[in-house]
Amino acid sequence: MDPVDVIAKKRDGGVLDPGEIAAFVRGHTRGDIADEQMAAFAMAIYFRGMARSEVSALTRALADSGERLDIARTFGDCVVDKHSTGGVGDTTTLAVVPLVAAAGVPVLKMSGRRLAHTGGTIDKLESIPGFRTRMSREEILAALGRTGAVIVAQMESLAPADGRLYSLRDRTATVDSVPLIASSVMSKKLAVGAGSVVLDVKYGGGALIGDPKRAEALARAMVRVGTDAGIRTVALVTDMEHPLGDAVGNALEVREAVHILMGEGSRRLREMVLALGQEMLIGAGHSPDKATARERLVSLLESGAGLESLVAMVLAQGGDAHVITEPDRLPQAKERWRVRAKEGGYLCKIDGRSIGRLAMALGRGSGAHGMTQDPGAGIILCRSHGDAVHAGDVLAVLHASPAALAERDGLLRWAHSAFSIAGDPPAPRPLVRKVIRAD
Amino acid sequence: MDPVDVIAKKRDGGVLDPGEIAAFVRGHTRGDIADEQMAAFAMAIYFRGMARSEVSALTRALADSGERLDIARTFGDCVVDKHSTGGVGDTTTLAVVPLVAAAGVPVLKMSGRRLAHTGGTIDKLESIPGFRTRMSREEILAALGRTGAVIVAQMESLAPADGRLYSLRDRTATVDSVPLIASSVMSKKLAVGAGSVVLDVKYGGGALIGDPKRAEALARAMVRVGTDAGIRTVALVTDMEHPLGDAVGNALEVREAVHILMGEGSRRLREMVLALGQEMLIGAGHSPDKATARERLVSLLESGAGLESLVAMVLAQGGDAHVITEPDRLPQAKERWRVRAKEGGYLCKIDGRSIGRLAMALGRGSGAHGMTQDPGAGIILCRSHGDAVHAGDVLAVLHASPAALAERDGLLRWAHSAFSIAGDPPAPRPLVRKVIRAD
Repeated sequence: MDPVDVIAKKRDGGVLDPGEIAAFVRGHTRGDIADEQMAAFAMAIYFRGMARSEVSALTRALADSGERLDIARTFGDCVVDKHSTGGVGDTTTLAVVPLVAAAGVPVLKMSGRRLAHTGGTIDKLESIPGFRTRMSREEILAALGRTGAVIVAQMESLAPADGRLYSLRDRTATVDSVPLIASSVMSKKLAVGAGSVVLDVKYGGGALIGDPKRAEALARAMVRVGTDAGIRTVALVTDMEHPLGDAVGNALEVREAVHILMGEGSRRLREMVLALGQEMLIGAGHSPDKATARERLVSLLESGAGLESLVAMVLAQGGDAHVITEPDRLPQAKERWRVRAKEGGYLCKIDGRSIGRLAMALGRGSGAHGMTQDPGAGIILCRSHGDAVHAGDVLAVLHASPAALAERDGLLRWAHSAFSIAGDPPAPRPLVRKVIRAD
Repeated sequence: MDPVDVIAKKRDGGVLDPGEIAAFVRGHTRGDIADEQMAAFAMAIYFRGMARSEVSALTRALADSGERLDIARTFGDCVVDKHSTGGVGDTTTLAVVPLVAAAGVPVLKMSGRRLAHTGGTIDKLESIPGFRTRMSREEILAALGRTGAVIVAQMESLAPADGRLYSLRDRTATVDSVPLIASSVMSKKLAVGAGSVVLDVKYGGGALIGDPKRAEALARAMVRVGTDAGIRTVALVTDMEHPLGDAVGNALEVREAVHILMGEGSRRLREMVLALGQEMLIGAGHSPDKATARERLVSLLESGAGLESLVAMVLAQGGDAHVITEPDRLPQAKERWRVRAKEGGYLCKIDGRSIGRLAMALGRGSGAHGMTQDPGAGIILCRSHGDAVHAGDVLAVLHASPAALAERDGLLRWAHSAFSIAGDPPAPRPLVRKVIRAD
């Protein structure tokens, strides 16, 4: 195979054979195919797209580049995996993983760090003292057997070609391509080898994808790849215009996950936990339908079994579970500043992207070297999209690091600019736009 | 400037500022911008094209990456440059450069080696014993002053960024892009700095570009770039379906150039020499119109002044001029095989691409290490497109190296397959399809 011929075939709109794609990825991994050839290939894919068979072949080739966790060998196909394309105030993983485990369905989730304005589950978990986000294959399997719930950082030994390709795409303006995103995400799912996967594909200002149609196309591509690989795969296409939960920030979001597992917390975040959780129970073959699954999950929230499951997970991963049972022990930011409504009306917009960036700015610059993010910093939203507000009402509380104090006025102005108040109530925004199943 | 932003802007169809393009090329030359970024940029250009201002900026940036010959400082703007996109049996340069010089217009031409099935002027000149195709800036200027005619190999110190970019494009399936070809060719013209340039852009099976519309687009792009750079530029879009002259092969083509300069040789090749030559005289301000220019060139062919000019050029560049005055002294291949028509009719096709490849195969494998091309090998065509032929007529004579003898039958079959004979005479093919001038 001449790599130039493969690039030219894609450039001219041809459909590549699985063998050509596999050889291209293997060649790149071995160094026979240069970075500039992979970059030209990625840009040709950006313009030409990929057929279903091509996306599946690329995903398999990336998954085949490293270790396979192969959890089915130990657990059969009952383990569930979960993925979100990333949002602001999206604490779903921290609540839904232990909740589904409490229902008797083991969940193994590998998470990432924050990307752009969106939060990262691993950053959030690191606000729990002692919590280990890096574990070996053996430790992961042991913890999964013991508690049924594991959340760890993405293992670098899984699909290493994807890591290399992603970094190349990041340098060459080829990140934003549906087939490349789909194969990147799903290659890591294939390498883990869960029996079923539930995907949350977000759109809107607070997500990484703005356009709902594009999110839907990505969801469909990922469901097809998963299905082609023999994984029961379903994707929810969900709204991420505004922050999902009331908390934005690492420790603040852990605290909100605890609230959700106590049957409290943001209505929309709870709805998202149930919507994803019920698909996870159905995917694992645990529940026959949505109504049964939801009933089971609600009862686990009410009984406190979901919270117990989170405690067990934190303990199994070496964390201090006291911060879960007594969330006031979580890291807290020193400064608290209230953001008050300047006028009355209806809260018609909370800019998710801006809030995500502001939460990071509030935690910036603390730590010994002025570099570490303050784990306690962030934002608590006190009003939700569509709420009626009066002038002077507290819209949000900013939790800031001491280093942010010098910029207090600017940060408060920034916070104000993230809220829009109008005379008429806004149209409600449904949370789940679409559920995409295998076709 | 973030290179990823520049790639993304082009990817999304934006028009880049000259400053962005200059910084991108400089960054690549310095190594700040990686090959994979340049490759992604080139593929984005492949799909999106470039505005006139972008092609001009890219051309300038490539020209600015190295030395500028700046011949105008010594000769003013009267020097003419000439370029052909490459063909089969295209010996035009070897005849037109000394002919135009004989009219009193200095010509400096930097040439390349053969590319794919098309011949290279430098390879042809190397069949003249002692001829130096590599000369320093000072030697070039001195020879130009003495004889008015210089043909040398492309200097590597001119537009080195173009060399690097071309090699990258060759590895990444991004060669075939009009703005990238135009900027590559014209960057070297800018670095030479002649006052006027005449371009021969060929299309058809024997050329590197098949489609005449595409050749026209390339011609137009190059004329615009030249004009924007203050060079009087004109392009001829010419037919290269069949071999241009009767000779295909290095020494055989030198011999045919001599015949042309003696007022003999192939009718179409002579026509091409006059068509390009008259534009060169007009471009240099020597002749007011085509008729005057052509009359002057024809008289120089008849008087033998053009041939004297070639002799002077060969001497000035260290070559043995006896091979020009007595062409039988040129290297000759040992084997001669006749290709005879198997049936009568009209010669309706001579496959230029196939003939170009065959000529190379005939010279392959000779030399001490079995690697050097036999300079005497090639093909002499005895009949032209449209000629009436009878069964048994000699269509061509193959001049083969001793090493080719083992493959004689296969090579003869190959030669036969390059000719098509039909019952009706084919439609004539006009040589010059269009002349593109500054708009």
